[in-house]
Amino acid sequence: MIPTSDVGKRAYDLDRAYVFHSWSAQAALDPMVIAGGSGTRVWDHDGNEYLDFSSQLVNVNIGHQHSAVRDAIKAQADVLTTVAPAHANLARGEAARRILDRAGEGFSKVFFTNGGADANENAIRMARLYTGRDKVLSMYRSYHGNTGAAVVATGDWRRVPNEYARGHVHFFGPFSYRSEFWSDSPQQESERALHHLRRVIQSEGAASIAAILIETIPGTAGVLVPPPGYLAGVRALADEFGIVLIFDEVMAGFGRTGDWFAFQSLPDSSGEITVPDLITFAKGVNSGYVPVGGVIISPAIAAAFDETVFPGGLTYSGHPLAMASIVGALDAMESEGIVANAKRVGADVIGPGLRALQAKHPSIIGEVRGLGVFWALDLVADSETREPVSPSVIGALKKTLLSLGLLPFFADNRLHVVPPCVVTDDEVARALDLYDQAFSSL
Amino acid sequence: MIPTSDVGKRAYDLDRAYVFHSWSAQAALDPMVIAGGSGTRVWDHDGNEYLDFSSQLVNVNIGHQHSAVRDAIKAQADVLTTVAPAHANLARGEAARRILDRAGEGFSKVFFTNGGADANENAIRMARLYTGRDKVLSMYRSYHGNTGAAVVATGDWRRVPNEYARGHVHFFGPFSYRSEFWSDSPQQESERALHHLRRVIQSEGAASIAAILIETIPGTAGVLVPPPGYLAGVRALADEFGIVLIFDEVMAGFGRTGDWFAFQSLPDSSGEITVPDLITFAKGVNSGYVPVGGVIISPAIAAAFDETVFPGGLTYSGHPLAMASIVGALDAMESEGIVANAKRVGADVIGPGLRALQAKHPSIIGEVRGLGVFWALDLVADSETREPVSPSVIGALKKTLLSLGLLPFFADNRLHVVPPCVVTDDEVARALDLYDQAFSSL
Ligand SMILES: Cc1ncc(COP(=O)(O)O)c(C=O)c1O
Ligand SMILES: Cc1ncc(COP(=O)(O)O)c(C=O)c1O
Repeated sequence: MIPTSDVGKRAYDLDRAYVFHSWSAQAALDPMVIAGGSGTRVWDHDGNEYLDFSSQLVNVNIGHQHSAVRDAIKAQADVLTTVAPAHANLARGEAARRILDRAGEGFSKVFFTNGGADANENAIRMARLYTGRDKVLSMYRSYHGNTGAAVVATGDWRRVPNEYARGHVHFFGPFSYRSEFWSDSPQQESERALHHLRRVIQSEGAASIAAILIETIPGTAGVLVPPPGYLAGVRALADEFGIVLIFDEVMAGFGRTGDWFAFQSLPDSSGEITVPDLITFAKGVNSGYVPVGGVIISPAIAAAFDETVFPGGLTYSGHPLAMASIVGALDAMESEGIVANAKRVGADVIGPGLRALQAKHPSIIGEVRGLGVFWALDLVADSETREPVSPSVIGALKKTLLSLGLLPFFADNRLHVVPPCVVTDDEVARALDLYDQAFSSL
Repeated sequence: MIPTSDVGKRAYDLDRAYVFHSWSAQAALDPMVIAGGSGTRVWDHDGNEYLDFSSQLVNVNIGHQHSAVRDAIKAQADVLTTVAPAHANLARGEAARRILDRAGEGFSKVFFTNGGADANENAIRMARLYTGRDKVLSMYRSYHGNTGAAVVATGDWRRVPNEYARGHVHFFGPFSYRSEFWSDSPQQESERALHHLRRVIQSEGAASIAAILIETIPGTAGVLVPPPGYLAGVRALADEFGIVLIFDEVMAGFGRTGDWFAFQSLPDSSGEITVPDLITFAKGVNSGYVPVGGVIISPAIAAAFDETVFPGGLTYSGHPLAMASIVGALDAMESEGIVANAKRVGADVIGPGLRALQAKHPSIIGEVRGLGVFWALDLVADSETREPVSPSVIGALKKTLLSLGLLPFFADNRLHVVPPCVVTDDEVARALDLYDQAFSSL
């Protein structure tokens, strides 16, 4: 999308000349230039505006350029931008306290990182050192970040307790629409997925397993809301075998599901929620206004490092600008009812709207799933066999939606509907209309 | 150091209650609270001021709260704080161009990360995919970051090309003062260290080695300036065996040595500099005002991903606030001659001053080494055997220096003298006097 304005062209040309892009072959890239944003909108330098139903990488939960977060960053920038992690800083303590308040019972400390990947790194480190065990079980349908080597490259003592990017074992999670377990109901999918996990644990050897690491709701993998009983069943297995349970809430946390955390959105039939031992977070905690992530730690695991050195760290752990942005974001999300808005708009507007869209385009929209502002349309070439649509269909949809002024989020054969938590009913209505036009144009 | 003021106490108490600290046992921690800073000074909430000769974690190269960087952050915060890496953004291209300008011949693209660890992760990924080989050679005396697992925990396709936090082999680098090679001159140390590296390459099998990853000047390991000929010799070995050469300049780069990059500070006798294939950076590029790092890439390696997908990425790659802070920092460092100041003050003031200090305290200061604003005093219990001083001596020195109003940087048995690049002659004189008092008090 080569821009027409001079500054747009400059941004585009500099990017093509000098910037190496992630997860892509570089030659054919044709990036869109984004110049600014506000709430659920972004714009380029050429006067084009887009409804942002991607939240960029599903991180702008509070919307673009929220004044409370922006002002918190600017105020902290005037005081102190950077401080070594060993020193205390007021913004860091205030941020940690607010995060723990929202996580509720079962957590006592926060370790801060720069993003989601190193949050998972440090949670895995804690679990391995806490249990004295090695293996980490996670799902095939998952994404936990792009890091896997720096500490093993390190030569000094910090390497020695950390040479463990090994022993990673993968299992299948529940996914009723595309079951790996020949199930015919969500209830059966849940039971069979738990049986499968139990068999993997037994077969790997429970005594060798440090952690089960799962996305509470696998996100990029397709917004795979777990069926009733699954999370509680995983918790029971973890307890039975002395395994640390880590919920990766990097994408699902901080408002996306309509609660502060996704696990709080998924109570069992008696209203009980399933609480993990460690929670990893990033994205929504400050909507990505400053790079940050972290681990929320149970008292038992935190206490294991009272007298024993925790062998992990990073230069920008608890970075003041990031901390100030967390304080600004969490306070504003609470006082403005932004998380409650995500819940309401999901239940009352997005969910019904997407199901109506499916009713109108039943041959391509195979399944609608989600909650809050966290939804996926599973697009199929054949609604009987559920064969995914081809990449060319996804390419065509993407092009049409962009030309209609909507910034979409696609992953494999799915359209993810993931606007900021501040999205209004009118914006959802407009997006639904644009999706409808795009599907109709196929 | 429990503060006396109310706000200081609040910052301290919140930290102790809620914040989990890196590289430490948690119970006995007694962090200093830092409230603000300017240039080479920081202060707490109680009216105490400190000369910052740590640059925090050797990252505040431009000094604390430089107005150009602060204003660049605030201006960008008003426009756009966050954008997905797939979209182009003007600040990102401007930052990449400035970094490439300074790296000079031999580099064509920049991949941005959140810090030093993931910079090394992505450099290793590039080297492995570029060569189709597995092993990474790095030094025992090194630190490259704390990550080693998230991508192997990931289940989706992004894991598959990345299951390689293995094949890490460590070798000894040159270190004349504590030679592993029974050498009796820097020249001999260089030759023998190169012979040792050649033997490790041959013994591991050259065809299995993707990369040699070294800190141009190992930093936390003790500011180990390589002896003449070493870097050129490593480059020659890499070329001979088709191995990618990665210089980790996370700590050494962007002004610390008195040049933009440390390798530019270490020409051989004919004035030739040794250029690597990949440079990793973080810290000094924006003095840590916003978390950021990255990889500077040679044209050959960049081109290898023109048609092939690069399987790495992170949500905050090329984050606008971070990019704006890079532009602000690099422009100000250039226009204000900040890198030149580091060179001059190192050669004319710090070096001679530390050598005079050694002459005064020869029984404890075993060696002075460094350049620019990157120095270490190797402290010994016995100047004959060079046995390191005990931790209790380091503890006593640290306490005295803090009480005298200097924030020091200690690593193992060493005092690292690492002020911001903007440090003045007077500030160095004051620090030298405080160091002198601390050594005299032992
Ligand atoms: C569930 C989950 N975990 C971890 C990550 C990695 O986070 P980051 O990109 O900040 O490293 C992501 C990123 O999309 C994610 O969705
Ligand atoms: C040479 C070197 N490489 C890598 C790192 C890791 O950087 P970060 O702490 O930003 O992950 C450091 C940190 O001190 C370093 O000194």
